[in-house]
Amino acid sequence: MKNKINRNIPDEIMREQGYTGFDSVEFGNPDIQRVAPKVTATTGNSKVVASLAEVIEKTLHNGMTISFHHHFREGDYVFNQVMRLIIDNGYQNLTLAPSSLTNVMNDIVVEAIDKGVVTNITSSGMRGSLGDAVSHGALANPVIFRSHGNRARAIETGAIKIDVAFLGVPNADEMGNANGMDGKAAFGSLGYALMDAQYADKVVLITDSIKPYPNTPASIKQTQVDYVVEIDAVGNPDKIGSGATRFTKDPKELKIAKTVNDVIINSPYFKDGFSFQTGSGGAALAVTRFLRQAMLDKHIKASFALGGITKPTIDLLEEGLVAKVMDVQDFDKGAAESMHLNKNQQEIDASWYADPANKGAMVDKLDVAILSALELDTKFNVNVMSGSDGVIRGAIGGHQDAATAKLTIISAPLVRGRIATIVNDVTTVVTPGDSVDVVVTEVGIAINPKRQDLMTALRDLPGVPVYTIEELQQMAVQKVGTAKPLEFTDKVVALIEYRDGSLIDVIHEVKD
Amino acid sequence: MKNKINRNIPDEIMREQGYTGFDSVEFGNPDIQRVAPKVTATTGNSKVVASLAEVIEKTLHNGMTISFHHHFREGDYVFNQVMRLIIDNGYQNLTLAPSSLTNVMNDIVVEAIDKGVVTNITSSGMRGSLGDAVSHGALANPVIFRSHGNRARAIETGAIKIDVAFLGVPNADEMGNANGMDGKAAFGSLGYALMDAQYADKVVLITDSIKPYPNTPASIKQTQVDYVVEIDAVGNPDKIGSGATRFTKDPKELKIAKTVNDVIINSPYFKDGFSFQTGSGGAALAVTRFLRQAMLDKHIKASFALGGITKPTIDLLEEGLVAKVMDVQDFDKGAAESMHLNKNQQEIDASWYADPANKGAMVDKLDVAILSALELDTKFNVNVMSGSDGVIRGAIGGHQDAATAKLTIISAPLVRGRIATIVNDVTTVVTPGDSVDVVVTEVGIAINPKRQDLMTALRDLPGVPVYTIEELQQMAVQKVGTAKPLEFTDKVVALIEYRDGSLIDVIHEVKD
Repeated sequence: MKNKINRNIPDEIMREQGYTGFDSVEFGNPDIQRVAPKVTATTGNSKVVASLAEVIEKTLHNGMTISFHHHFREGDYVFNQVMRLIIDNGYQNLTLAPSSLTNVMNDIVVEAIDKGVVTNITSSGMRGSLGDAVSHGALANPVIFRSHGNRARAIETGAIKIDVAFLGVPNADEMGNANGMDGKAAFGSLGYALMDAQYADKVVLITDSIKPYPNTPASIKQTQVDYVVEIDAVGNPDKIGSGATRFTKDPKELKIAKTVNDVIINSPYFKDGFSFQTGSGGAALAVTRFLRQAMLDKHIKASFALGGITKPTIDLLEEGLVAKVMDVQDFDKGAAESMHLNKNQQEIDASWYADPANKGAMVDKLDVAILSALELDTKFNVNVMSGSDGVIRGAIGGHQDAATAKLTIISAPLVRGRIATIVNDVTTVVTPGDSVDVVVTEVGIAINPKRQDLMTALRDLPGVPVYTIEELQQMAVQKVGTAKPLEFTDKVVALIEYRDGSLIDVIHEVKD
Repeated sequence: MKNKINRNIPDEIMREQGYTGFDSVEFGNPDIQRVAPKVTATTGNSKVVASLAEVIEKTLHNGMTISFHHHFREGDYVFNQVMRLIIDNGYQNLTLAPSSLTNVMNDIVVEAIDKGVVTNITSSGMRGSLGDAVSHGALANPVIFRSHGNRARAIETGAIKIDVAFLGVPNADEMGNANGMDGKAAFGSLGYALMDAQYADKVVLITDSIKPYPNTPASIKQTQVDYVVEIDAVGNPDKIGSGATRFTKDPKELKIAKTVNDVIINSPYFKDGFSFQTGSGGAALAVTRFLRQAMLDKHIKASFALGGITKPTIDLLEEGLVAKVMDVQDFDKGAAESMHLNKNQQEIDASWYADPANKGAMVDKLDVAILSALELDTKFNVNVMSGSDGVIRGAIGGHQDAATAKLTIISAPLVRGRIATIVNDVTTVVTPGDSVDVVVTEVGIAINPKRQDLMTALRDLPGVPVYTIEELQQMAVQKVGTAKPLEFTDKVVALIEYRDGSLIDVIHEVKD
C-alpha cells in the first residue's frame, strides 16, 4: 500500500507486524492503557554484585530484550563491556532496544548480529559500520527506528518490553539511587534512561562511583533498581560532549544561522514568554547567539528552552533571558555541570519531553524548533536517516517530535559538496512535510504554502529572499545536476515509525 | 480462623475478600506484576477548567473510587469543597481512598455515608465523629485501614484502583506541573499524593495559585494530570503544621524522651552513618534535641533522617549532623519551607518511603524508629487505632512500616489518666510484637525477649531500670486497676491490614 504521503509500505509488513500507515501529524485524544513492569521485591540488602559477568548471568536469557541509554555518547564505556560479555557467553536472539546507538557501539553490534546474538534492533538511529551492515541486509528482521518521544510511547504501551536495562551512571549508592549530574563521567540529564528505569523488569546500574547511602538527588530511584555493578570507568569525560562547543565560523553556516534568526524574530511567535529548541552543533550555537542579541534588543524573555541543552542556553538562563531550561539530555559539560546547581534547570524524561500518547508533552508547548536535514523534498518531507548513497547514517532523535512546534524551521545548505540537499523526493521520509513550516538555506528561504500567515510575515525581510521550495530545488539542480537514482533490492531492512507508531516509510537494502 | 498472632478473623471475610491471615513481618522476594493507569492523551491545550463542579461532572460516575491526600492536615480546604459538590450532586456508591482522613474531614464523610454517597472507605486512619460513626456500624462495608507503605503497595498492585484523584496543591501551571514547596499553603513534600498522581486514571489538581508555564520543580508532572482547577484558597497555612513545634515541658514526657535517647545511644546502632525516624509531637522533638547533644558529644553523624520531617530535624541537617533528610511529608512550616532551598532534602513518594513490595524502601535501611502507642500488650503488639472505649480514633500512618527498623522503640506512658497503656491484650493489633524491640515508659524499659543482644547492651544503664513487659503491665494494673472488658457486636466494621496486605486484625462494632 501507499500511505498518506505516498510512500510504498509492503503489505506483508503492515499485515504481519500489525502496522497502520502514517496518516496525520495529529495524534488526537485516544484512551491508552499503559503497561507496568513485573518487579521482584527486595529488602535492605545491598544490591552491589561483584562483576558485570555475574549480573548478566543473574538476569539475562536468550530471546530477551535489553536496553541501554546513549547519554555518554561517543564517550560510552558501558555498552561495549556489557555486549562483549553477552557475545562471549553465547547468548542468542536478543532484541537490542537502546535509546540510540552512537559510533563507539557500531562494531560490536555488527559482531553481535553476525553471531546471531542480536536478531532485532530498535533505536533512534545508527551510523558507520553498523548502518552499512544493516543497509546491506545483515539483519534478518528490519530495524525499527523510533523518535525519542515515540520510544517513550512504545515503552509505556508495551510495544517495547524491556527485560533487562543496563544503565551506566556516573554515581549510585548500593541500593541504586543515582543521577547523571555528579561524578567523573557526569552527563547531566538522565532523560532517556528514566523510561528504562521505570518500565524494565530488571534494572542494572553500572557505575564507577559508589556513593554513601542515600545518594541524592535521585533521578533513578532505588525502588526501580535490581542490581548495581562497579566498574573502573563508565565513560570518557572528554568525549561525552557532542561536538561543537563554539559557534561556527563557516560563512555559509553563519549566513543560514543569521537567516534562521531573522525568521524567528519576524515571526508572530517572537514575543515575551516564547519557547524554543535549538539543538546542538556549531550552527545551532550561532543561532542561540543571534537570538540572545535579538532578545536583549527587543526586551523579550523566553519562558523555556527545551531539548538537548548546551552551555550557551544555560548562559541565557543565567542572564535571565530564559526562565526555565527543560533538559532531556545535555550536550556539553557546561550544561551538565549546571544541572545540580541551577534549580531552574528541570530534568525531564523522554515521555514528558515528547511522547504524544501522554497527558501532554513539552513539545506540545514549543513555539520555535530549529532542526536539520540530510535531505528535504518539494513536499517539505525531511530525511535525517539515509545518506546520498541510500545507506543508513542518521537518527530520528527528537526530529519528528520537535517538528510539531508552532514554527518548525529546517536549516540546511542547498547542496553539500556535489550532493543536492533539496530534492524532488527524499530517499527516506522521517518527518512529514505537514509539520515543517520554513526551510532556510544560504540563498534564501521557502515557506510551506499552508502557512500563508508566515508568508505575510516574512515576505519582505531585507536580505532574505523567499522562494518556492521548487525554486530552491531547481537551484540545487543547477549547482550539482540531478543525481543518478539509487538502486535498492526488495528486501526491507528498516522501518521508520512516525511518533504515533504508524509507518511513515521503510528503508530497502542497497544494491551495490 | 485465628491468624499467627492469635487474632480472630471471621472466615467469611477471609473467603469473600480473598485475604490471608497475617503470618510474618518478613515480606520475602516475590515477583509482583504492577498495574498501570489508562490515560487519555492530550496535546498542548490548557487543562484549566472553570470550576470544581465542572471537573466533577467531567470525571466522576457512580461507583468510582476517588482519592485525596492529607498533606494539608487540619488546614485542608479542598476535601470539604469537593465532597460537598459530590454529595449535593447525588453521586452514589463511591469508594473513598484518601492517604488519610484528618479531623476537618470527619463530618462531611459521615454525611456522605448517611446519604449513600460513600459506601466504602480505605484510609490510614480516622478519628472524631467519623471514627465514632464507623465504630457504631454506620458503614455497610468494613473500612480497610492500610499503612502508608501498604497503600503504596495496594495502588501499585491494583488492590486500590483510583478512578479520579482530587489533589490539592499550593501551586500549579495550566498543564499540571506542581509542587508542595511554594505558595501560601505550602506543605513541603507531596509524598503520599505522588502515588495517586502516578496511578489514578484521572488526576485533577486543585490550586489557589496558577504559575507561569513551565512550573518547576515539578513533583507532580503534566504527564500525569488531566485537569487543573483554581479555587480561592486550598488550605489554612496556620493549621497545616501538625501540633507541637517546641519540645515538651511535661516532666513525664521529658523523662521518657531522655530514656529513649539513652536507649538509642547505648544501642549498637548509634555509630557514624546511623539513620533514624522520630516522628512528630513535643516528645519526639525532645528526643531529637537529646539526640543532637549526644551526636555532638560523641562526634557521630547520621546518614539520613526519615519520615514526617520537622524543623528540628532540618536544624540537624543544616548543622551537618545529618547528611540527608528524606521527606515523605513535612510536619511544620520550617521543614516545608526548607525543601526548595536545601538540596539535601529529598522528596520521596510513599512507595520509596515504605512499600514492602518494591525493589527496596527507605524503611529497609532504617536503624532507629521511635513510635508511639495507644496501647501495647505483653506480646509487644501495638494498637494505634482504637481507643480505650473500643472506638476508632487513630491512624496506622507509617507505624507498621517504620517498625521494621533495626531498633524499634515504642515510647508510651505506663498509664494515661485512669487508663492503662500497657495491657495483657491490646484491643486492636496494628503493629505485631515481632517488630517491636524496646518499650520505654517513665518508670523504665522493657526489651523484647528475642533481642538478648539489646538486653546485654541496655541492662546496666544508670537510671534506666529494665523490667519484663509483664512487670510493666502489672505496674499499670497497680496504678489504675483492671479495666472492664469492652463489649462488641459480631459485626466487623474495619479491617486492619498488615503492610503486606494480609489481615492482622479486625475491629468490631461497639456495643453501647
